[in-house]
Amino acid sequence: TAITPTSEPADAQAAANAAQVSVFSENGTTYFYNPDESLSSQLSTGVISGGSILLPNWSAYSGTPSQIVAMKVRSTAPSAIQENEVKMELLTRQMICHTAADPEAYPDLPSEVDNFTGLCPLEPPAASPLHKSSTFGYVTTVYKAVNIKTGQHMCLRRIHGYRLVNTKCMGLVDQWKKMAHSNLVTLRQVFTSKSFGDHSMVFVYDFYPGSETLMARHFSNPSQLAASLLDPFNGDGSRPYTQTKNNLLRQQAAALSNTGLLPESLIWNYIIQLTSALRYIHGAGLACRTLDPTKILILGKNRLLVNCGGIFDVLTYDPNSSNPMAAMAVYQQEDLVSLGRIVLALSCNSFIAIQRENLQQSMELVTSNYSTDLRNLIMYLLTNPQRVKSVNDLMPMIGARFYTALDTCIQRTDTLEMELQRDIESARMFRLLTKLGTVVDRTELNMDTAWAETGDRYMLKLFRDYMFHQVMEDGRPFLDMAHVITNLNRLDAGIPDKVCLMSRDEQNVLVVSYSELKNCLEQSYGEVLAAATAKPKHQGLS
Amino acid sequence: TAITPTSEPADAQAAANAAQVSVFSENGTTYFYNPDESLSSQLSTGVISGGSILLPNWSAYSGTPSQIVAMKVRSTAPSAIQENEVKMELLTRQMICHTAADPEAYPDLPSEVDNFTGLCPLEPPAASPLHKSSTFGYVTTVYKAVNIKTGQHMCLRRIHGYRLVNTKCMGLVDQWKKMAHSNLVTLRQVFTSKSFGDHSMVFVYDFYPGSETLMARHFSNPSQLAASLLDPFNGDGSRPYTQTKNNLLRQQAAALSNTGLLPESLIWNYIIQLTSALRYIHGAGLACRTLDPTKILILGKNRLLVNCGGIFDVLTYDPNSSNPMAAMAVYQQEDLVSLGRIVLALSCNSFIAIQRENLQQSMELVTSNYSTDLRNLIMYLLTNPQRVKSVNDLMPMIGARFYTALDTCIQRTDTLEMELQRDIESARMFRLLTKLGTVVDRTELNMDTAWAETGDRYMLKLFRDYMFHQVMEDGRPFLDMAHVITNLNRLDAGIPDKVCLMSRDEQNVLVVSYSELKNCLEQSYGEVLAAATAKPKHQGLS
Repeated sequence: TAITPTSEPADAQAAANAAQVSVFSENGTTYFYNPDESLSSQLSTGVISGGSILLPNWSAYSGTPSQIVAMKVRSTAPSAIQENEVKMELLTRQMICHTAADPEAYPDLPSEVDNFTGLCPLEPPAASPLHKSSTFGYVTTVYKAVNIKTGQHMCLRRIHGYRLVNTKCMGLVDQWKKMAHSNLVTLRQVFTSKSFGDHSMVFVYDFYPGSETLMARHFSNPSQLAASLLDPFNGDGSRPYTQTKNNLLRQQAAALSNTGLLPESLIWNYIIQLTSALRYIHGAGLACRTLDPTKILILGKNRLLVNCGGIFDVLTYDPNSSNPMAAMAVYQQEDLVSLGRIVLALSCNSFIAIQRENLQQSMELVTSNYSTDLRNLIMYLLTNPQRVKSVNDLMPMIGARFYTALDTCIQRTDTLEMELQRDIESARMFRLLTKLGTVVDRTELNMDTAWAETGDRYMLKLFRDYMFHQVMEDGRPFLDMAHVITNLNRLDAGIPDKVCLMSRDEQNVLVVSYSELKNCLEQSYGEVLAAATAKPKHQGLS
Repeated sequence: TAITPTSEPADAQAAANAAQVSVFSENGTTYFYNPDESLSSQLSTGVISGGSILLPNWSAYSGTPSQIVAMKVRSTAPSAIQENEVKMELLTRQMICHTAADPEAYPDLPSEVDNFTGLCPLEPPAASPLHKSSTFGYVTTVYKAVNIKTGQHMCLRRIHGYRLVNTKCMGLVDQWKKMAHSNLVTLRQVFTSKSFGDHSMVFVYDFYPGSETLMARHFSNPSQLAASLLDPFNGDGSRPYTQTKNNLLRQQAAALSNTGLLPESLIWNYIIQLTSALRYIHGAGLACRTLDPTKILILGKNRLLVNCGGIFDVLTYDPNSSNPMAAMAVYQQEDLVSLGRIVLALSCNSFIAIQRENLQQSMELVTSNYSTDLRNLIMYLLTNPQRVKSVNDLMPMIGARFYTALDTCIQRTDTLEMELQRDIESARMFRLLTKLGTVVDRTELNMDTAWAETGDRYMLKLFRDYMFHQVMEDGRPFLDMAHVITNLNRLDAGIPDKVCLMSRDEQNVLVVSYSELKNCLEQSYGEVLAAATAKPKHQGLS
């Protein structure tokens, strides 16, 4: 009977209570409580305050908004997966934060490097320990690690065997550290270290757990291409023309036959994010210089993050250059060519597509499968090398697709807000149960060994029994999370409704209101708190 | 001592445990647990599975990511407010959902209208009950209400005394019901009702609790303008020129002297959202027709929602028109003029600015305070009425500001994800405490009255005491939420670490590992569950 909505009450407060019970039974769970004092002051917005509208003195999860429900209906995936997708992704990220390196597999891993501990490699070990990064020309390793001072998980990119000879380049590092953009992994710190047993240079970046590279997401499918053909960004061009040509043809055929080409909307979404990052970087007078599929991260469904900014500025720093910033203009132009190659490769779903000898055929593929805008964008970036280009010139080709990207982003915001609204209340429930546990069954307080079994505590104890130990008519346990939640909410709100509590020997029945129980809890917890914060009692003489 | 990290353990599992304890002490709280089976399969992303990396068999909140910390540092507000802003907003929205109308103030409010109950007016009562909406020309009332079937909170806009004579217009209503865009309040249902004691037409929309109108946010400040001057959208132009002129001048002076004009970035943010909605509506062959500051909602900081779509299509439906869609092109052009007036009013921070006789002076204000792009956008929309205009023509003027809007939106996504990551774990803690409460102190199970005090239950009872009833050396209570959380996490993870439990009479000490306690809980809860789901016992003969 505690769960069934009671009959229509007369007064307004009870009407509000009845309403929440009814919402509860429709949605499975509902929560209500006394808001913090600071909350009510926010209520001026959109609601008539004063006499004619009753503000609740509790708060509750108000169910899934209809626009979110409609959003789910629109998508095709099963609703159970839809429901959990966001949380699963977040839980996965948390778990990745807590992975650890097996000490047996990595016996040489230092326990601390500068301010960092808990190092764990993020990429599979290279085939040979001397394998150099095709991007940077040095042996490199990427770790996740915990900053000892802040407790934050960070990403460490170590350049092996690099001796910094000139610290002037740190000016550029400082510029990179000031960069903050939602499509850029921010550089936080650069230091040299001998902790690895060599001279290493370490670049510390924000860590995005669960992210993978653009290369891994789109160009590492074994059914797509052999790994040996996947590296034209560092291409030596020594492979026979016919072999790559045949591969390209074969792949194009396969892609088209099962419509394996990427949807144009996804490619544009990537373009918007990459140009957003480039525009920001170039606007700051810097150049990315690592716009490479192996140095672009994808987080979740399609959030892109440009990675490794600043590393080249240190590694290739020329102390003899009279004006180190002059070279930036050249690097910025190179960024735009890299962008063009990435877009072309995505559009052909192949990295062979961007080899010089395949360009014409690749462009034909783009022309026949995608919009003129996409074709024009690639043409602008990859042809006419003498013309000075700007990322700003790409905006008219993107056009209304900006609106689509924004709409998608706002929808995700709505979904996240809804999930958060649901979970906010659990924290409150947990705190309330903790408070109750602190008070009930305490062996003594202020030398009073009967404290737990008398007065307020006795009622609270019986209330706890009532919450957790319900039985059915025939004595079987009655397990119902909703019963627990409803009663905790009523306790927290302190509503005037009454509840029957039975003593453990079933000899006595106490009828008590939730508001009395709330007083009991506050009084008793107050006593415990006062005792806890009292001056320490010295034992012996004092 | 339970809180202090233990000394470095030898094996890897314990190393992982030690790591989480260390993260905990830095951030105040840390959670870890056994993930659901389905979780581990997601871990292929970005992490080397297999021998060399140890995946935790628990999960934990991994602290605030550095990019979020940096985001907060960048903003100037006090961190405590920053921290809670998102949640406060969400809690406020939930509370608004649960406001109720005072039955004494609204004695005539029907308890049910069609499928809706819990009606509560959302706007202050009109000065006169016969006051007609300046937009629609009918008496209107807006309510929030709960859909009885779905439990969802919806917004009902009632047109008083309207008799639907022709149902052909429902074709347009059906079109509106299919619309879904993040800057548009979706129409869900239209019905006629006699529940209010008259013939009413009710339009049901998604409800956005906490939203206010653009009018209320920006043009209702009493220090700004008298309310009587605030209505030029329905302007009769009968006020003497000098009076409005003086008002405009006075206001402009006031705005400029304290730089009271709106920041240009905010105006562009609004423009992007309004054009996004208009583009979507026009693209669907419809027209907004209510692009009015009183019919545009602002949710939170600056999310805009175009409201009331479809109402005019019903109210002004002409059954004798041979082609009702032909008029749409005209209405679309009117939408663009309305957009221009809104942007101009925002730019001058005044509604008098858009009166015909003030236009030239207003444009001078725009020219001297804002960019050429903003000026050109207003000029395009408000001049040359013969030219057929399109919302698409505005995109080049918006230009790179799309990137800013996207960056802002993605940052909000990051913040929300972080908050959600934190709260996900509370729900788990709450469930675990409920499980523990269900088992401990149960008076009997399967007729066994000693069940609670024997074996597993006894240990769990002592463990609960240990969690909640810690005392200091001198006997004072030791209250520490972190102690509770840590121990619940250890229980949930079932780690091999041991804990000393003392009997209530302090005569016995049990040393038991968390993994044993976890077994105790699972066993005991399993027994309760089995008893609960057993066949009902019939009393008497059977």
